[in-house]
Amino acid sequence: MTDLSPSPIPALRGPVPLAHLFLHSLLRDGDRAVDATCGNGHDTLLLARLVGPRGHVWGFDIQQQAVDETGRRLAEAELAGRVTLLPVGHEELAEHVAEPLQLVLFNLGYRPGGDRSIITRPETTGSALEQSLQLLAAGGIVLVTVYPGHSGGADEQLAVEGWSARLDPRAFHCWRMGQTNVTPDAPYLLLVQRGR
Amino acid sequence: MTDLSPSPIPALRGPVPLAHLFLHSLLRDGDRAVDATCGNGHDTLLLARLVGPRGHVWGFDIQQQAVDETGRRLAEAELAGRVTLLPVGHEELAEHVAEPLQLVLFNLGYRPGGDRSIITRPETTGSALEQSLQLLAAGGIVLVTVYPGHSGGADEQLAVEGWSARLDPRAFHCWRMGQTNVTPDAPYLLLVQRGR
Repeated sequence: MTDLSPSPIPALRGPVPLAHLFLHSLLRDGDRAVDATCGNGHDTLLLARLVGPRGHVWGFDIQQQAVDETGRRLAEAELAGRVTLLPVGHEELAEHVAEPLQLVLFNLGYRPGGDRSIITRPETTGSALEQSLQLLAAGGIVLVTVYPGHSGGADEQLAVEGWSARLDPRAFHCWRMGQTNVTPDAPYLLLVQRGR
Repeated sequence: MTDLSPSPIPALRGPVPLAHLFLHSLLRDGDRAVDATCGNGHDTLLLARLVGPRGHVWGFDIQQQAVDETGRRLAEAELAGRVTLLPVGHEELAEHVAEPLQLVLFNLGYRPGGDRSIITRPETTGSALEQSLQLLAAGGIVLVTVYPGHSGGADEQLAVEGWSARLDPRAFHCWRMGQTNVTPDAPYLLLVQRGR
């Protein structure tokens, strides 16, 4: 059972616990959130808990196996009713979700334990990121965990970070959060908030 | 009156609201915190609120005027009893505070509205940062707002960031959090957490 806020600050060993800290600070009962890359469904489940019984989550994954695994996890926790699972790529985001969104979560790269040749791609990720901005509520956040280390990861990093650097600073607050005492290709977190 | 948690996520326009988000997530009633650079006392007051009636805050500033201003602010809020104010440089940190600390906060550079020739210095800041690490509780955090833009700021940035990069990753989680869509000399946040 995931501990909900107020929770002690987690050990910030990498971008995942840091992202979770933002989720706990941001999300409230009744909120709407998107998991753009369900993977094994751990984050989808956390989102479902945090948006509460009046909120809703949309979960995307192009791999049917990932959607199935996420669905099983949600059913076990009796939270399947809060989540719409979509076995399509996140570049179809805007066709399926209802705005305004408080959060859109991306975990780039490949699915842990899955086929490493199936990775997120700069073109489709870029399109999904742009759609996310259009759907964000004021103060809402896009969180992207970037993995420069895998094959294709360096290109993706440049594309996503460059995208954030070009956003209008009067409209969006863009942050890069990386560790200083680990290898340069370690994963890091990108946070884009729509201004109020 | 500062709103305490649960609070909506603030607009993350710069490192100060981002630091406040971490303070709200981290601090609990009964905690011990240090404001290593009181300045005008805004953050000292926030810390005093967040540690609650059973907690304690130590506030350092080498400028008597800053200590006086902070004292006035705390007295107005009827929170002076939670804070020990010290008109000494933060390089004397370890001589005055009781461990373990959940948080040590640094705001580098000069005091807003004060004498811009009086700035924090790499040598004394470095010593205070080292002392802070020794006094941190497991999971506790050192937060440093770095201002590369002012005279002397670039040297200070190199010193502080280099220091964090040399810390043992098995013992400390070190993060640099900067904005991607602002000028390169914009202030940013450095976070060092003692591992659990």
